[in-house]
Amino acid sequence: MAAEIVNSEDRLEGDVIDPAFALHRGGKMAVQATVPVRNADDLSLAYTPGVAKVCTAIAENPEQVHDYTWKSQVVAVVTDGSAVLGLGDIGPEASLPVMEGKAILFKQFGGVDAVPIALDCREVDDLVETVARLAPSFGGINLEDISAPRCFEIEDRLKERLDIPVFHDDQHGTAIVTLAALRNAARVSGRQLGQLRAVISGAGAAGVAISRILVEAGIGDVAVCDRKGVVSADRTDLTAVKRELAGFTNKAGHSGSLTDVLAGADVFIGVSGGTVPEDAVATMAPDAFIFAMANPNPEIHPDVARKYASVVATGRSDYPNQINNVLAFPGVFAGALQVRASEITEGMKIAAAEALAAVVADELSAEKVIPSPFDERVAPAVTAAVAAAARAGGVARR
Amino acid sequence: MAAEIVNSEDRLEGDVIDPAFALHRGGKMAVQATVPVRNADDLSLAYTPGVAKVCTAIAENPEQVHDYTWKSQVVAVVTDGSAVLGLGDIGPEASLPVMEGKAILFKQFGGVDAVPIALDCREVDDLVETVARLAPSFGGINLEDISAPRCFEIEDRLKERLDIPVFHDDQHGTAIVTLAALRNAARVSGRQLGQLRAVISGAGAAGVAISRILVEAGIGDVAVCDRKGVVSADRTDLTAVKRELAGFTNKAGHSGSLTDVLAGADVFIGVSGGTVPEDAVATMAPDAFIFAMANPNPEIHPDVARKYASVVATGRSDYPNQINNVLAFPGVFAGALQVRASEITEGMKIAAAEALAAVVADELSAEKVIPSPFDERVAPAVTAAVAAAARAGGVARR
Repeated sequence: MAAEIVNSEDRLEGDVIDPAFALHRGGKMAVQATVPVRNADDLSLAYTPGVAKVCTAIAENPEQVHDYTWKSQVVAVVTDGSAVLGLGDIGPEASLPVMEGKAILFKQFGGVDAVPIALDCREVDDLVETVARLAPSFGGINLEDISAPRCFEIEDRLKERLDIPVFHDDQHGTAIVTLAALRNAARVSGRQLGQLRAVISGAGAAGVAISRILVEAGIGDVAVCDRKGVVSADRTDLTAVKRELAGFTNKAGHSGSLTDVLAGADVFIGVSGGTVPEDAVATMAPDAFIFAMANPNPEIHPDVARKYASVVATGRSDYPNQINNVLAFPGVFAGALQVRASEITEGMKIAAAEALAAVVADELSAEKVIPSPFDERVAPAVTAAVAAAARAGGVARR
Repeated sequence: MAAEIVNSEDRLEGDVIDPAFALHRGGKMAVQATVPVRNADDLSLAYTPGVAKVCTAIAENPEQVHDYTWKSQVVAVVTDGSAVLGLGDIGPEASLPVMEGKAILFKQFGGVDAVPIALDCREVDDLVETVARLAPSFGGINLEDISAPRCFEIEDRLKERLDIPVFHDDQHGTAIVTLAALRNAARVSGRQLGQLRAVISGAGAAGVAISRILVEAGIGDVAVCDRKGVVSADRTDLTAVKRELAGFTNKAGHSGSLTDVLAGADVFIGVSGGTVPEDAVATMAPDAFIFAMANPNPEIHPDVARKYASVVATGRSDYPNQINNVLAFPGVFAGALQVRASEITEGMKIAAAEALAAVVADELSAEKVIPSPFDERVAPAVTAAVAAAARAGGVARR
């Protein structure tokens, strides 16, 4: 397949066509009909006049849109291109290769159809309004690569307004996989979440959501650091989201820098892209867990981390324990869509994390606290757990 | 395929499952990856880290979004559900089966990917703004089933604002196929367009666009009738669009009812859904052409029409000469996308009509002034003609 789409215009590196450009030529996805349209009889069922009966039935009973269209199996992957990968604000067009990539991962791993929607607007009001107008065509909204703190308000308002799942993957996908890895790291070392004190470096989308899910799951304490140090109630420079964060984290009342608060901590979770000096790592509690997830350069190099930690995870595929969102979002949406959940609750996210952790229960080791992204057991396990949690939580509609 | 998706919940007619409901269960389309995502190497090219290089290249040179994403092969099929088929205002959800049907016709007939986008808003400003915000993700916008007169302003403003093709199919698709059929009807009967006086029943989206293209193509005269009679400059009840229409149609200065103006006319084009009495049909010029396109009930029944006309066309598949938009829109967009046209000009529409007419040049008869929707020569011919006309008109970008 890749060979077909190589084109002489593609970028050359030396004399070699860059394989990423060659692969991307013409895009990475297509649409296909799932019903035949070969002759007039086919057309009269799939299009006029037959389609009119189906339209009328939906007009009379709007819930049937889930039965007779692809709505309940298709997710919009929505961005404004404001915080794309580590590239930052590159705008909607330049973000499209990532959104297409996400869309094909939805399909490949979760069997969920997905459509890239990169929007040319930036105001929170405009993004909320635009996504709400699009919502009739989709069974779920995956928000992607929208910068903090706008991403929090956009998600909150859309969840409030829409009756379909809205999920900001940079927040909750990362949080689910992190919780799963932490659960298993605790198991490997015979500890309970409640005994652990964690430090999170980064108070953006991922840092905030990880803090929430860890507190929800019963972690002992968590302190979050932004560039200015520990997020604590005594600071006067906090955004609304960070003020909220200060309210439910840092029970110990730490203040100061990341280095200060790392002393004696059991867990380091890096979602910042900064660097932590080795002498600060050395002050952590014995048998610490270090999840240094910045990509491609972890906040603490795994070789350094291993000197001080019993479990090391990164965002990279070339080290053990890769914290990769693809372990979560396909199954989360597949499960939510399966039962037509009206939202994705905290309970569903925690169920996803537990299911993900359980996949490797029998092969657990310090080098395997989380399954490989290509472990075929993952998506079915997460799907089933999320669907069950939606039912248990009363948000399933079938 | 149909058998698989039959489900006991589907509507029963008597004891038989209605085949239209059975076929629609689960929707009619899906997304597929066109590149492999089987292992970590694949993922590192199609997603991070490889995708970052492609994003950066697009950020530096925005035109490359056409090369390295599916943008230049995907069309948004956009509606607000306000004028769906003959069903009227059924809203966005209930319109989705039609939009999905349209999307799979795009793919099947033109090889063009298409995504149904049914919007939950009604104000012209809101629709324009929403579609403009969506535009970065798509190579073209097919407006569909939006009620008149809003559809005119929406299309005009989007064409003005966007650098990708915007095409309201209910207007221009119908106009292109009608012109093609009329060209061939004239050929069959040895007449020139300039000798013909046409009457159009219906001054909505289709009626207005047909008037425009016929005048552009050099018809002798055309008079358009709405429910109150001939659209003429002396009327005081006209919308802005009908005032404009009055300015370039009805050169003869007719007034009065449809029946009045039909006397002596060479061509009847029905896009209204009303009924024309046989004694009015009998007053038309000898060897008239009657295109009674209302569906499922033509304005003049074909059996009646044949008594007075030399060429009869309808919107139905069970009579000869079916005026079906699927003859136009797939090739029109395929041609426009092929050369990255910035818009679809009048010249491109007329080229599409000429190419469509030419497909049956060698088999021309009163019963075959237009190809079958399943004639495989159609889409390639229209595509090539539209691409060439875009180049000739200076709107092609490659």
